[in-house]
Amino acid sequence: MTAEVDASLEEKIVELTCGARAAGRKLANQNTQTKNGLLLELARLLDSKPTRARLLEANSKDLEAAREKGISGALLDRLALDDKRIDGMIQGLEEVAKLPDPVGVVRQSWTRPNGLQVDKRTIPLGVVGIIYEARPNVTIDAFSLCFKAGNATVLKGGSEAIHTNRALVETISSVLTPSGLEDTCQFIDSTSREAVSVLLQQEETVDVIIPRGGEPLIRFVTANSRIPVIKHYKGVCHVYVDEQADLEMAAAIAENAKVSRPGVCNALETLLVHEKVASEFLPGFSEKMNTAGVELRGDPASRAILPEIRKATEEDYYEEFLDLILAVRVVSGLDQAVDHIEKYGSSHTEAIVTRSSDRAREFLERVDSSVVLVNASTRFSDGGELGLGAEIGISTSKLHAYGPMGLESLVTEKFVIHGEGQIRE
Amino acid sequence: MTAEVDASLEEKIVELTCGARAAGRKLANQNTQTKNGLLLELARLLDSKPTRARLLEANSKDLEAAREKGISGALLDRLALDDKRIDGMIQGLEEVAKLPDPVGVVRQSWTRPNGLQVDKRTIPLGVVGIIYEARPNVTIDAFSLCFKAGNATVLKGGSEAIHTNRALVETISSVLTPSGLEDTCQFIDSTSREAVSVLLQQEETVDVIIPRGGEPLIRFVTANSRIPVIKHYKGVCHVYVDEQADLEMAAAIAENAKVSRPGVCNALETLLVHEKVASEFLPGFSEKMNTAGVELRGDPASRAILPEIRKATEEDYYEEFLDLILAVRVVSGLDQAVDHIEKYGSSHTEAIVTRSSDRAREFLERVDSSVVLVNASTRFSDGGELGLGAEIGISTSKLHAYGPMGLESLVTEKFVIHGEGQIRE
Repeated sequence: MTAEVDASLEEKIVELTCGARAAGRKLANQNTQTKNGLLLELARLLDSKPTRARLLEANSKDLEAAREKGISGALLDRLALDDKRIDGMIQGLEEVAKLPDPVGVVRQSWTRPNGLQVDKRTIPLGVVGIIYEARPNVTIDAFSLCFKAGNATVLKGGSEAIHTNRALVETISSVLTPSGLEDTCQFIDSTSREAVSVLLQQEETVDVIIPRGGEPLIRFVTANSRIPVIKHYKGVCHVYVDEQADLEMAAAIAENAKVSRPGVCNALETLLVHEKVASEFLPGFSEKMNTAGVELRGDPASRAILPEIRKATEEDYYEEFLDLILAVRVVSGLDQAVDHIEKYGSSHTEAIVTRSSDRAREFLERVDSSVVLVNASTRFSDGGELGLGAEIGISTSKLHAYGPMGLESLVTEKFVIHGEGQIRE
Repeated sequence: MTAEVDASLEEKIVELTCGARAAGRKLANQNTQTKNGLLLELARLLDSKPTRARLLEANSKDLEAAREKGISGALLDRLALDDKRIDGMIQGLEEVAKLPDPVGVVRQSWTRPNGLQVDKRTIPLGVVGIIYEARPNVTIDAFSLCFKAGNATVLKGGSEAIHTNRALVETISSVLTPSGLEDTCQFIDSTSREAVSVLLQQEETVDVIIPRGGEPLIRFVTANSRIPVIKHYKGVCHVYVDEQADLEMAAAIAENAKVSRPGVCNALETLLVHEKVASEFLPGFSEKMNTAGVELRGDPASRAILPEIRKATEEDYYEEFLDLILAVRVVSGLDQAVDHIEKYGSSHTEAIVTRSSDRAREFLERVDSSVVLVNASTRFSDGGELGLGAEIGISTSKLHAYGPMGLESLVTEKFVIHGEGQIRE
């Protein structure tokens, strides 16, 4: 795609978001059956041979262009589509179709002394802008969740995935067009970064922006958006091994949190160990980590026990390694653990391992991260694992949603009031 | 107060918001009794003779300065304090103390197949920044609601009210200091506009900004904030008189909505009348409005019935008059009424008057404003009137809160998870 002139790009994005707004209004009043039917039809179409072939062909163009640019490794892997990943999209659609419809639910209801009947009823947010990077599966996942919750979607994917995303959106459109709902899925068909800036100014037509990707993208979006943004920057997650921990359980939880999938935001980054159990716990745990290929970096107290490990710097404690590296610190107790988490943490997910219900309660109360656990792995901080169904994202800012967000985070509540002629004094 | 140099202003605001963050953490774990006790102590202190005298003296300085600047009328009235208005603050504090504590409530709870026990428990938002204009009562109202919900407050009031606000915050501080909670009420003691810009960048320490004032202030805040903003720009509220309306009820509701307090955001600005009842309804209603001193501005169809009224311009339909002016339009039915509201409305509050429950249902579903009513005045769109207790503001953007916001909008929910050693596959 050739670069576009500014004015025409802006015009196009304004038109496209206005279209989304109007289509969103139409979608808001569709019943559950209609929405589910279209999601399942999309699943069937994705599963058809010609569509699979078209998607893989488009994806191979993106992969080729990426290789020419010298892109490799993790980024290339995120970009790549294969039949298994298409299967994943299809499964995702089927799961979303099964989830309860979050729209039209009366969450609260009461009657005022003057007889006014007040309901708080869920309605869609309206138009959701999704700004993401190389992963093409986000196109289907984000669209389907927004659609189920009655929202129109404006998609701006990474330039690396432009051919794949275009093919995916064409597939979505072909399913929606017979119902006249094609404008509920809008795609900004541009590889220009400026398109993001223009989208972020459309506060009259777009209700929320959800950026998905690395911290620099998310910081750019937050700094430039006039539209409310739901986001998390990073996940610097902690496990605190309390003095009264079951140490075998602690080792299993910490290992699972670190090793099961180190590249994700709910993976463990820093382990805090009570000084009274450090010398009993750390040597065995260190061996376990060694076997798993994890590099430990420690403070002086942990290095007194494990002299072979590298020194942890101040920066290490702020770092989201997303890799087989684990920072370790010996703390004097719960107070210091909580202080450490407040200072270095990212409000994402923290766990305590302890047999003491008092200690657990104190930790759960004092740590104000979006997900706090006792005696369980941080890796459960995930919409699917927590039973929310598919996840549209994770919020570490406290407005609207805090923590993993499922369908329920894609609606809001309006006040619906029935009177019999009441006027105000 | 003399103008400050930029660097020192910024430093001061950073320090002050950091102080608020730490104090908020402390406040988050205070029990209901402690919080209520301090609010009631503040009420008693405000009621004391020396405090009243000090407040009125500070206020007279502000009033004098305002008069010197040539300020008069409504703005001067908003700025002015008297014993009755101090009584209002005291009453407000007593009411907030009576409201249920919104913190620590388990709103949802479930168990996962693997045995994980998941609770969604309310916690304070953290630090709330309030940016407001001349009304000094906002200082006490906003502080008390935030405090009850466990939040620290950073207050930036209008420069016109600087002496009054300083005296109010000193009063608050003197009550909080013995408990070590004085930093939960932070006051930006500066008349500089730049202070607002600096505050809006403190995303590490401030969780939400609530601007209260005119549209230009709110647009400035939205355009410049890195912190999530809860706001409404304006209230262009509508009453739609349906074909099947009780016309007497319709006239009473429209009059109440327009006349009872024209300067507020839930007042009626545009009346939509079904064409089949227009010629029966409008003449009598016009007389009523004439008596109440309300100027009508109409479209051609309404002027065909009421030739004496002025022509409504396109701009009139977008306008929040905040005055005894009412735009009128005759519409062909519900569709056109809904379209008009979508085009010209501000997502604030709209009412239908009808005897038909089908029409009512359709209107309530299709209009996606934050408050929709059937057979009741738009003036009920208010936290107090709807039973939320005191109101911290009204949101017309759909994130976090939509419509009048009480204490419950000043908390968020975290996931609290109890396990027995569960790890993720």
